[in-house]
Amino acid sequence: MKAVGERINGMFKDVRKAIQKKDPAPIVDLAQRQTAEGAAYLDINVGTAAEDQLAAMRWLVETVQGACKTPIALDSQKLPVIQAGLEVCDGRALMINSVSGDPDKLDVYMPLAVEKNAALVALTMNVDGVPQNVDTRVEIAMTIVSKAMEHGMDLPKVFIDPITLPVTVDQKQPKFMCDVIAQLKILSDPAPSTIVGLSNISQSTTERPLINRICLVMLQAYGLDAAIIDVLDTEIMDAAITADMLLDKMIYSDSYLRSARL
Amino acid sequence: MKAVGERINGMFKDVRKAIQKKDPAPIVDLAQRQTAEGAAYLDINVGTAAEDQLAAMRWLVETVQGACKTPIALDSQKLPVIQAGLEVCDGRALMINSVSGDPDKLDVYMPLAVEKNAALVALTMNVDGVPQNVDTRVEIAMTIVSKAMEHGMDLPKVFIDPITLPVTVDQKQPKFMCDVIAQLKILSDPAPSTIVGLSNISQSTTERPLINRICLVMLQAYGLDAAIIDVLDTEIMDAAITADMLLDKMIYSDSYLRSARL
Repeated sequence: MKAVGERINGMFKDVRKAIQKKDPAPIVDLAQRQTAEGAAYLDINVGTAAEDQLAAMRWLVETVQGACKTPIALDSQKLPVIQAGLEVCDGRALMINSVSGDPDKLDVYMPLAVEKNAALVALTMNVDGVPQNVDTRVEIAMTIVSKAMEHGMDLPKVFIDPITLPVTVDQKQPKFMCDVIAQLKILSDPAPSTIVGLSNISQSTTERPLINRICLVMLQAYGLDAAIIDVLDTEIMDAAITADMLLDKMIYSDSYLRSARL
Repeated sequence: MKAVGERINGMFKDVRKAIQKKDPAPIVDLAQRQTAEGAAYLDINVGTAAEDQLAAMRWLVETVQGACKTPIALDSQKLPVIQAGLEVCDGRALMINSVSGDPDKLDVYMPLAVEKNAALVALTMNVDGVPQNVDTRVEIAMTIVSKAMEHGMDLPKVFIDPITLPVTVDQKQPKFMCDVIAQLKILSDPAPSTIVGLSNISQSTTERPLINRICLVMLQAYGLDAAIIDVLDTEIMDAAITADMLLDKMIYSDSYLRSARL
């Protein structure tokens, strides 16, 4: 499973402060530590840390690119912020995070992803909101897949996100997510990839890290390909790597936990 | 998920010594501590700790019955040892662990289970050995289910064990187990229950507790009903309970980890 490191996000105090002071040190440190812990991508999200979000995204991308060779995920709901990040990208592997499943949005983001050879996170939600059931999510995923075919986008580069709702809101959601992931894997050949922004599952609970990692393992068992997580949390990374090993996605060796992070 | 406490087993030194000295204290302690940690059944296995396995089984059952009200699982490959345990049972809920999927064996064990109102663990193996693939395991499970119907045994009281082989022997086994469990759930209505003897999965690995609990969560996500585990290992119990909560099998509360053990 590809771990997308979530820590370079303006919602965290240390990152917010670094953005506001234009202090590269904390960003460089987070980029390098997340890389050392096995991040496949580093998510970069300005959040509300800067008035000029475009300039802040450019600065973050340049700072991260100077610190490591790890692929980056440009994370914003606003297209101009994504475009600002793309302007300064140095050609390394990219992910655009994210677009909704509305056809008119997909018609804008998919040509952009194809042009930049970027992976694209597409959410199973649309103008009507987040569907609570499995079927509507799969229907939106079908729209995403057919748009990808129309725009000539490689399906494994399309990362469909079934949307994580807090378990405290509805305890049926985790199993729904498992079922959506299983169904996405048979939607097309090759299948689209799947991704979750995990931490929402444990919102307002007393056992956030435990709930996050158990939910992640359940989703991996159904074929999840990627997750946006705290890669600096050793326990969630150990859980994710062990699930990969048990699913025969990496060869067992006595040092498999270490090898997987290299 | 029902946790079957594995600790009262003559293969553990403390239990072996207690059996040989007829010292009830360590057995009483293990029975009460496993009960406090949420064991649904206490497995009782004499192992090779006594020459007279029948007398040892009787003594263990009586000692455990004097210590707590928890249901017990009589664990032996030998029918006379199981029968010795049954002789002294006080009428509490019972599990017989285990019988192979050979029709002639099932014809002996199932009437016994029906007579004693006991649950029965049946393994998906037969005279030809342990099948390595999914299909043959499901075929043996079908034999078990049809024998249960023939003998008038309630299917939820039949616990089918898909057989756990070490991940170091074959990394395809954990996913095979998931697939067998999923298929067993649609074999009949009501479906048979499923159970695993978990710890074999991590044999000869350097990360036994981690691999055990991650494998358990994966199997739970596919519908596993019970597992023979070390209920005194807080981390595996927390993982199992959290998976149950995420699968909507218990209601979330801030103290769900504690409530589930009551």
